[in-house]
Amino acid sequence: MNRKEFRDLASPDEANEAIESLSLEAGIERVPLEDARGRVLVARLDAELDVPGFDRASLDGYALRARDTFGADEADPARLEVVGEAHAGQKPGVSLDEGQAVEISTGAVMPDGADAMVPVERTDRVDGSSADQGTGHITNANAEREAANADADVVLIRTSVAPGDNVMFAGADVAAGERALGPGTRITPRDVGLLSALGIREVPVRARPRVGIVSTGDELVRPGEQLDSERGEIYDVNSYTIAAGVEDAGGEAVLYPHAGDDRDEMERILRTAADDCELVLSSGSTSASAVDVIYRVIEEQGELLVHGVSVKPGKPMLIGRLDDSAYIGLPGYPVSAMMVFRTFVAPAIRRAASIPEPASATVTGRLARQERYGEGRQRLMPVGLVETADGETLVYPVDKGSGATTSLADADGVVEVPPETDYLEDGEPVTVTLFSPDVRPPTLFGVGEDDPTVSRALDRLENPRYLSVGTRPGLRRLRDGVPDVAVAAGPLERDEGATAAKSEREGGHGGDAVELGRWERDWGLIVRAGNPDEIEGLADLVDRDLRFVNRTTDSGLRSSLGASIADLAADRGTDRHVLEDAIEGFDLGLRAHESPARTVIAGDADAGLGLRETAERLDLGFVSVGKQPIRVLANQDRADKKGVLELEEALERV
Amino acid sequence: MNRKEFRDLASPDEANEAIESLSLEAGIERVPLEDARGRVLVARLDAELDVPGFDRASLDGYALRARDTFGADEADPARLEVVGEAHAGQKPGVSLDEGQAVEISTGAVMPDGADAMVPVERTDRVDGSSADQGTGHITNANAEREAANADADVVLIRTSVAPGDNVMFAGADVAAGERALGPGTRITPRDVGLLSALGIREVPVRARPRVGIVSTGDELVRPGEQLDSERGEIYDVNSYTIAAGVEDAGGEAVLYPHAGDDRDEMERILRTAADDCELVLSSGSTSASAVDVIYRVIEEQGELLVHGVSVKPGKPMLIGRLDDSAYIGLPGYPVSAMMVFRTFVAPAIRRAASIPEPASATVTGRLARQERYGEGRQRLMPVGLVETADGETLVYPVDKGSGATTSLADADGVVEVPPETDYLEDGEPVTVTLFSPDVRPPTLFGVGEDDPTVSRALDRLENPRYLSVGTRPGLRRLRDGVPDVAVAAGPLERDEGATAAKSEREGGHGGDAVELGRWERDWGLIVRAGNPDEIEGLADLVDRDLRFVNRTTDSGLRSSLGASIADLAADRGTDRHVLEDAIEGFDLGLRAHESPARTVIAGDADAGLGLRETAERLDLGFVSVGKQPIRVLANQDRADKKGVLELEEALERV
Repeated sequence: MNRKEFRDLASPDEANEAIESLSLEAGIERVPLEDARGRVLVARLDAELDVPGFDRASLDGYALRARDTFGADEADPARLEVVGEAHAGQKPGVSLDEGQAVEISTGAVMPDGADAMVPVERTDRVDGSSADQGTGHITNANAEREAANADADVVLIRTSVAPGDNVMFAGADVAAGERALGPGTRITPRDVGLLSALGIREVPVRARPRVGIVSTGDELVRPGEQLDSERGEIYDVNSYTIAAGVEDAGGEAVLYPHAGDDRDEMERILRTAADDCELVLSSGSTSASAVDVIYRVIEEQGELLVHGVSVKPGKPMLIGRLDDSAYIGLPGYPVSAMMVFRTFVAPAIRRAASIPEPASATVTGRLARQERYGEGRQRLMPVGLVETADGETLVYPVDKGSGATTSLADADGVVEVPPETDYLEDGEPVTVTLFSPDVRPPTLFGVGEDDPTVSRALDRLENPRYLSVGTRPGLRRLRDGVPDVAVAAGPLERDEGATAAKSEREGGHGGDAVELGRWERDWGLIVRAGNPDEIEGLADLVDRDLRFVNRTTDSGLRSSLGASIADLAADRGTDRHVLEDAIEGFDLGLRAHESPARTVIAGDADAGLGLRETAERLDLGFVSVGKQPIRVLANQDRADKKGVLELEEALERV
Repeated sequence: MNRKEFRDLASPDEANEAIESLSLEAGIERVPLEDARGRVLVARLDAELDVPGFDRASLDGYALRARDTFGADEADPARLEVVGEAHAGQKPGVSLDEGQAVEISTGAVMPDGADAMVPVERTDRVDGSSADQGTGHITNANAEREAANADADVVLIRTSVAPGDNVMFAGADVAAGERALGPGTRITPRDVGLLSALGIREVPVRARPRVGIVSTGDELVRPGEQLDSERGEIYDVNSYTIAAGVEDAGGEAVLYPHAGDDRDEMERILRTAADDCELVLSSGSTSASAVDVIYRVIEEQGELLVHGVSVKPGKPMLIGRLDDSAYIGLPGYPVSAMMVFRTFVAPAIRRAASIPEPASATVTGRLARQERYGEGRQRLMPVGLVETADGETLVYPVDKGSGATTSLADADGVVEVPPETDYLEDGEPVTVTLFSPDVRPPTLFGVGEDDPTVSRALDRLENPRYLSVGTRPGLRRLRDGVPDVAVAAGPLERDEGATAAKSEREGGHGGDAVELGRWERDWGLIVRAGNPDEIEGLADLVDRDLRFVNRTTDSGLRSSLGASIADLAADRGTDRHVLEDAIEGFDLGLRAHESPARTVIAGDADAGLGLRETAERLDLGFVSVGKQPIRVLANQDRADKKGVLELEEALERV
């Protein structure tokens, strides 16, 4: 084995080289025909028999000797004696001589002595013993029939045929010994047809490489189990995600139980996985101690070829070997893990599975905003796509910040930025490698406030994308010209119109926004079911000893709350800040739409800021404080875009 | 239900309308996350929790109050008392006040009182009780450490941070109540990541429509079972092929046992299938009686909406309903069945499975030869593709004649020819819908004699295509300019050079052929193992009472045999036809390469025409008669095509 070792930060090329030096290839397995679709043949399959295995009638009609039909036509048919019948699936019990014919059905074995056949449409059966139709075939009461021998069963042949006409000879479809399918063929339904015709029940295919997935970290909990957020537990994102990626690439994913941060347990699990699998992937924790445990096991018990790769994300990648298995350590952060998996690991699994690289679809678009790099590492930048009204593609980086687990679900592909690039300009053309060739830009890209009515309207659209960033960031993004629409909640901002105009003057992409819809929603205080504290309004929060839970300042609800408190302060002749300070928990702003309600359910607050709709859905009490306008605003340049028009229509219907 | 009934031959549009009027949609099922990849969500999934569920440290370092760091820098660090540690997966057992910090690891819960964190790289830990490194972090023996309070554990913070810096707030990734995935989402690995993060263990997806496959015909045998060719049995091609097509389209295929032609049995099986499945497909037999049985069951027990469609192939298609299930009857011939399935049935299954139509890849190329139609029916023409040296695509119809079961394996896509088209000219541009977007033209397209050496060379190429049509048809096709190479066996044809020249004069695509390789192969008589009849050569066939089995005149072996018999006739001073007439079975020409050998094995002949290599592989005896040249000839215009050069190299190595 020719293994390369890189002790310093390896370049992406060196990382690929190290992975190629490992052997991930699984052996050969035999699969039954019904499981062969999509698998890759490892050996040439030659035909072991002729298809068909006999000379076969191609139509319903009469088998005969071609020379007996020479010169026959409509006016002067040949007259042959019918000496028997031949049916599909039966041995022909008859042979024929000069002047004779055998009635034959499609697919039947041609009888001995016959070298051609005539379809029934070009014949007339003349049953000598009766003037009626004898066999179900149409007969004409014409001169020939009168002339037919009254003692014999006769057919009139109204065309001449050459030897071989309407006969499929043995081996004409596939000949015994013929090369049927070559090694490396990825089996399609059409190939299944060929294999079926050859009677092949099992095919030798490349076994799927088994890929073990080991996750570490005391804080990780498998989906479906109970999560204790107070202990800092989070769901294990990487295990199932990487498993899905492994299966996508043609591997067989094997999930191993969680190991926590215990070194002995981790070593035991890694060794079990290495024993079972061609490749072991570790992924999961971002915690230094968990990563350290794995690193030490591989370095001491196996061998480490690469420790760190000069790519972002992906720097903490490990490449090595444990026992007889290859080993790759993925970064802990889910987005990083998936990007590294896609870039370095999936191609290696496909090679081992003999699956060709998928047709890589790329899209060229303009970058929607300037991006700075300048870290000297190759950058793999997840991006989303949005189409402008004139069909141009805008490309925007998808980044929820370090530690985000889910942003790839909002991305369409990746832009690779070379290490020497310091920045990419706003408007610069970039090439996006789509996550798969069938990725299409969303039909509509919306941002802003989370609202149940908007959610229901989006359900009526095909493939929309909506990022719940809150009202203010949503309006800011709309002004920057990337999304199609923004959803804003709460009192109108004073400078909203002015800002749009300003953006236009400064040559921004924005322009004035077009309002697609506007309605009001009931907001107020979400309280325990039945309102046991008898809370009647905001004044109770100020005056009584109640625990409140707020939303962040990005939220439109927070703006409406601020306005109502200002009104209350004006009524009382005091400053709003005095009232805000008097509310316990006013500064505790949760980012999430439903989080205040859930805090109330958990018993950690007596009242939370929220919507009537949320309270009703979660079976909580609700104290209305006011109504706030919701506005759906479209980028003026996109007002005629199909998805925008569809959203406008959907909003009218929900 | 709004069902259309077409008693006359329906147009393709009417057939689609009838299929759309049937309901194939299956219900909803819940699948575990590990099986969710590729499935289609039926309902919107909203986040039921915040991700992360707590304010989370993004790096290893120190949690603190941002205001305690204001003004701090390298030269003038802030000095904070370390009051504890917080680890990922553990409840922080500590809270902090003004002037205090908590050592924190990536992913840990931010302790109460902290609103920001500083990465360890921008800090120096000063353990008051010792001058050495106390905790594994690097410390500088500098002035600050000397100045540190000797009784307290102190960290020096060399940067200032704002509230929120290096903290991922609860809900920042996904907020509770947020719209996570919309209905209709086809789940990718990236979506599995989002679902994992939300702790969702099972997802509601569209159930795969169950498609029952019922095959009829007394002559059909399932692959893997014993075939009796004398009874005209053939392997059932359609069942497994259609099943693979159903799975490709997102359905679940259910194969029902063979029914033969018995009406009661057929009715019982159809009803069972209708009971279990959303759609029942019948396919299999070409025999009129089997088709008739099904037709009667549907017409009498269910309802028939369409009986025959004006498309070729596909005329005998049936569309209807049996009990609560949809029913579609496919044509019996495998190529026809598959074409109808692809065109009419697969799209309906995809709709029912909520799977989007695959990105349909099309290729435009020049038609390689004139094709005549003029039957007034829309034509679905399977075609192969071949690339010329300058990258142009030639399109040639793939047609092994009526009844061929396997030609689709040699095809790359379909050209749809409208009913009003009488013919397409040689060279006319046509649009080919590829069988799937990842279909690529073969790297090399060869035709001609079947030869074991050529087969081994082809095994070294990626994605070659080779049609074993025999020497003469192969050379003819090469002259017509479609294939890249032809393999010729046997004595040189007298007019071979002349014909190539003629083709050039007449403006054919051909030009002179370039020889890529030439070698000799041993041919002769394949006899029973050990040669019990002590056959020594051709003279024995003429003079003794031996049963011989020949190849067809297309074969190069037959040409060599003819030449040797002519030599023997010259020796004996007689005519070659006299000798040929004296050989029993001389006229019995089998098309298949190995068929004569297999006839000898079966005991139906004493000697067969064949190659030494075949005899050895099948453990038979061999009587050498001569050596014949094999030549691999390339179309002169393609001599530099990559696949041709690869074949030339491969031939040198095998």
